[in-house]
Amino acid sequence: MQLLKDRILRDGKVFPGNVLKVDSFLNHQMDVSLFCALGKEFKRRFADTEITKILTIEASGIGIACVAAMYFDVPVVFAKKTQTKNIAGDVYKSRVESFTHGRVYDIIVSKEFLHKEDKVLLIDDFLANGSALLGLAALVQDAGATLSGAGIVIEKGFQTGGQLVRDTGLRVESLAIVSSMDADGTVHFA
Amino acid sequence: MQLLKDRILRDGKVFPGNVLKVDSFLNHQMDVSLFCALGKEFKRRFADTEITKILTIEASGIGIACVAAMYFDVPVVFAKKTQTKNIAGDVYKSRVESFTHGRVYDIIVSKEFLHKEDKVLLIDDFLANGSALLGLAALVQDAGATLSGAGIVIEKGFQTGGQLVRDTGLRVESLAIVSSMDADGTVHFA
Repeated sequence: MQLLKDRILRDGKVFPGNVLKVDSFLNHQMDVSLFCALGKEFKRRFADTEITKILTIEASGIGIACVAAMYFDVPVVFAKKTQTKNIAGDVYKSRVESFTHGRVYDIIVSKEFLHKEDKVLLIDDFLANGSALLGLAALVQDAGATLSGAGIVIEKGFQTGGQLVRDTGLRVESLAIVSSMDADGTVHFA
Repeated sequence: MQLLKDRILRDGKVFPGNVLKVDSFLNHQMDVSLFCALGKEFKRRFADTEITKILTIEASGIGIACVAAMYFDVPVVFAKKTQTKNIAGDVYKSRVESFTHGRVYDIIVSKEFLHKEDKVLLIDDFLANGSALLGLAALVQDAGATLSGAGIVIEKGFQTGGQLVRDTGLRVESLAIVSSMDADGTVHFA
């Protein structure tokens, strides 16, 4: 998606360790007019797919998912991150390893909000090692619901997550796939 | 706002300790078509006010803030919760006491995304003891920016936060003010 690539080239910042900082428009400050364009593009790509619910993960996936949901006309559920050892109540739970923060945590969704009749689109801002996406997919599978696909804003194509997730049979649509980042800060797309 | 009150009466659940659970439409599963109505109503109430940015707090404020921002045509910034003792980088920081979780944490916003020229509308899902809202207001004040007001979805009118925040001179618009909740689960509005 050219609009997004242009924005990454203009406002993204590359830091050592293959960190791409896009917090001026995507995941700290959020450009909601850009989110509308992203939402429309997700809807265009998944126009042929039945979707009854969008599932995302806190915190930075929520804004994108909510704006995208307007174009799909479905509710959003967000998985909560928790380090609590014993979760009270009826929840689906899976484990996620964070690339950015270098730690492991559980994600949970109340069983009230995922049913076997649901056809679920996963939405997230980044796909890197694939752990968050696989964790979300596991929640959907635990609920016996249908995985309709995954919509990702930025995929780090040089990391293993994209392949790993697609190998499970999940359809992944990434709006920008970064193939490499130079030490001088230049971002290249696939 | 009648639409919201009706929804709280229909889908809200009252739990011991004055807990109002609205996670089927507001802060776990999110009814984005309702969020559109909330966003329009915030815009109507603040139509006379100059606003250049919306500031909210992760996680449950983000969805409402992003949808509302579409009607204001401004970017959203969300404050991050952190228990990290030493924050790296240039951030504004303040302290918040959580009513729901019974713990204290810091909230931070990068100095890049709050400037003294900004006229900031605070948005959050709940106003109870006022701690989150006062924490957000402190970030805006630290940045030397203008506090244009606060838009709250549900205010617990029987707690002290509303008075506390309004006493600071901040204009607070709450779309539903709960005056009391009965043991049998009935919710009353102010």
